[in-house]
Amino acid sequence: MNRRNLVAGGALGATALATPHLASAQTRIRWRCPNSFPKSIETLYSAAEIVARRVREMSDGSFEITVSGPGEVVPALQILDAVTQGSVECGFTPGLFYFGKDPTLALSTTLPMGMASRAMFAWLHYGGGRDQLRDVFRDQNVHAIPAACTGAQMGGWFRKEIRSAEDLKGLKFRIAGLGGSVMQKLGTVPQQIAPSDIYPALERGVIDAAEYIGPFDDEKLGFARVARYYYYPGFQEVAPSTDLMVNLRAWEALPKTYQAMLETACIEAWHATAAKYDVLNPPALRRLIAAGTQLRPYPREVLQALYRAAQELYVELGEQNARFKRVHEHWEKFRVEQSQWFRIAEDSMVNFLAVASAPR
Amino acid sequence: MNRRNLVAGGALGATALATPHLASAQTRIRWRCPNSFPKSIETLYSAAEIVARRVREMSDGSFEITVSGPGEVVPALQILDAVTQGSVECGFTPGLFYFGKDPTLALSTTLPMGMASRAMFAWLHYGGGRDQLRDVFRDQNVHAIPAACTGAQMGGWFRKEIRSAEDLKGLKFRIAGLGGSVMQKLGTVPQQIAPSDIYPALERGVIDAAEYIGPFDDEKLGFARVARYYYYPGFQEVAPSTDLMVNLRAWEALPKTYQAMLETACIEAWHATAAKYDVLNPPALRRLIAAGTQLRPYPREVLQALYRAAQELYVELGEQNARFKRVHEHWEKFRVEQSQWFRIAEDSMVNFLAVASAPR
Repeated sequence: MNRRNLVAGGALGATALATPHLASAQTRIRWRCPNSFPKSIETLYSAAEIVARRVREMSDGSFEITVSGPGEVVPALQILDAVTQGSVECGFTPGLFYFGKDPTLALSTTLPMGMASRAMFAWLHYGGGRDQLRDVFRDQNVHAIPAACTGAQMGGWFRKEIRSAEDLKGLKFRIAGLGGSVMQKLGTVPQQIAPSDIYPALERGVIDAAEYIGPFDDEKLGFARVARYYYYPGFQEVAPSTDLMVNLRAWEALPKTYQAMLETACIEAWHATAAKYDVLNPPALRRLIAAGTQLRPYPREVLQALYRAAQELYVELGEQNARFKRVHEHWEKFRVEQSQWFRIAEDSMVNFLAVASAPR
Repeated sequence: MNRRNLVAGGALGATALATPHLASAQTRIRWRCPNSFPKSIETLYSAAEIVARRVREMSDGSFEITVSGPGEVVPALQILDAVTQGSVECGFTPGLFYFGKDPTLALSTTLPMGMASRAMFAWLHYGGGRDQLRDVFRDQNVHAIPAACTGAQMGGWFRKEIRSAEDLKGLKFRIAGLGGSVMQKLGTVPQQIAPSDIYPALERGVIDAAEYIGPFDDEKLGFARVARYYYYPGFQEVAPSTDLMVNLRAWEALPKTYQAMLETACIEAWHATAAKYDVLNPPALRRLIAAGTQLRPYPREVLQALYRAAQELYVELGEQNARFKRVHEHWEKFRVEQSQWFRIAEDSMVNFLAVASAPR
């Protein structure tokens, strides 16, 4: 932590660190929380605000977290660094963004072909996931609390139909993170493009396809006007989790009452995010379809090729990084067990009801 | 509220009601919380304890909720009455148990062929569900907070295979609540039997089949030894939600800080319950199968007959009760919309992964 940050920061040095382990709920704490997601992605952005509002309510205003957009206090992709250094007390950001520091951080968010939301929550909180991830976050000087989940995203917008894995070859696809690494194995050329630049790139044919989030967010960026086919499922992010990353000294100095408030509020925000998306996405998808969007499932053969490519990638990452290997094995065992269990009680019911209650 | 209860209760009269709307987090509150589920159903029972532990941690012990088993303070099926009367401040109990007072209360728990857990949570908190239910709980003098969800249950244990809807005719089936009313339309004879009496009834052939919860709880009662076939899915309870029911005066007298703690802690407990079951059920099911249990899906034709019977029942209930009709229409519209949306982004991914990652 450098001196300038401490002076600029204020709260961490002056308040939190000066009063370690006080049990009083009246301790005045002021934290800043930069957010990796802009206010325009309102559902994800507001997860941090749900946390802030709840701890304010529960502490009668004594514990105040101020959320800021990317670039206001800290750039979107530098939030972990700022938390590590203590220049901010906490930040709302997915571990996946910091894959370059340690690929294990991606497992705190999701991997392509990952768990659905209920399994991911169970893994993190009751399946040993947070324990598995503790040391990788500790190396970053961080206590990480899962604080948002979007639910399954969409596959993306394509200018042409995808009929086989062949069609992915040479395709210039705006796709973030590990989804791009998986597709690269099938010959796709992943592109990193800022959200605001996707539309013109698709329009001018600079790229052939782009994935972003899901119907509600995608609709606002107008992709439907420049790419006809909307593919599902979003194999690259089935239930991505975003963390409230807390500077370890700030966490340890936080009164235990506030620690409990923060942990609980983050669980609420995690589920609130998926729930809000579940409410917002269906009408957005209806509007898109009414305006001409063609909804398409990835062919099974394409998903199978992507699944094999993903497994190859995880073997490679494990060979390069023993910690990734350890946590991935734990994650994968849980994922497969949940997948087989859900097939019985949950999925058979859900699949039956999807057909039985389809509008005629 | 009668005088004896007030004196016996203490906390509600002396503390909570005497200090309305205090914002201080230091206000000392002592609540009793009878639980409809016994300690032997440890996962469901402990949801109330998660709530109690969290509010204790967040309030530094100032807000204390003492959970008691069924019959210790209040019998399992009389908890709503005790909360209504104010003889206890709150209770952990599903609205479905009080169907006789108003069938609308069942919609706070689940209906047969109901929503899966993520949709149910979204409906309750972000889809307008709690608003829809507010007046039916207000009539009971209750502020209800959803506080536990088991996830999809199993269909039940059968001594003989079910090959068609014909096979349900005359079947003596221990099945609780509305699931029984649905099956009755197909000629099944629903039986109400206390959990501890199910095993001997199955063994002696007094009943032909019984449903309880899921692998983890069912295993403990030993049904596998007296009924060979374990059917799924549990159409009768896809994602049953249990409420922390709070006496309305106790709620209104609670400091706003504690109200926020209680709401947030209940959201944690709701998801913790499903997560704990998701961790506990798969190994239990493996043990059951290893010991000879035959896992069977209900034939599609049987589920279709049950689905039609359920829809008939809801029309009848709506004709008898305008409030049920209003809330059910709201619930059903949301259920169908979620079902169709999940089919795209979530279910297609989950179904693919269930096959792709099946052990070979």
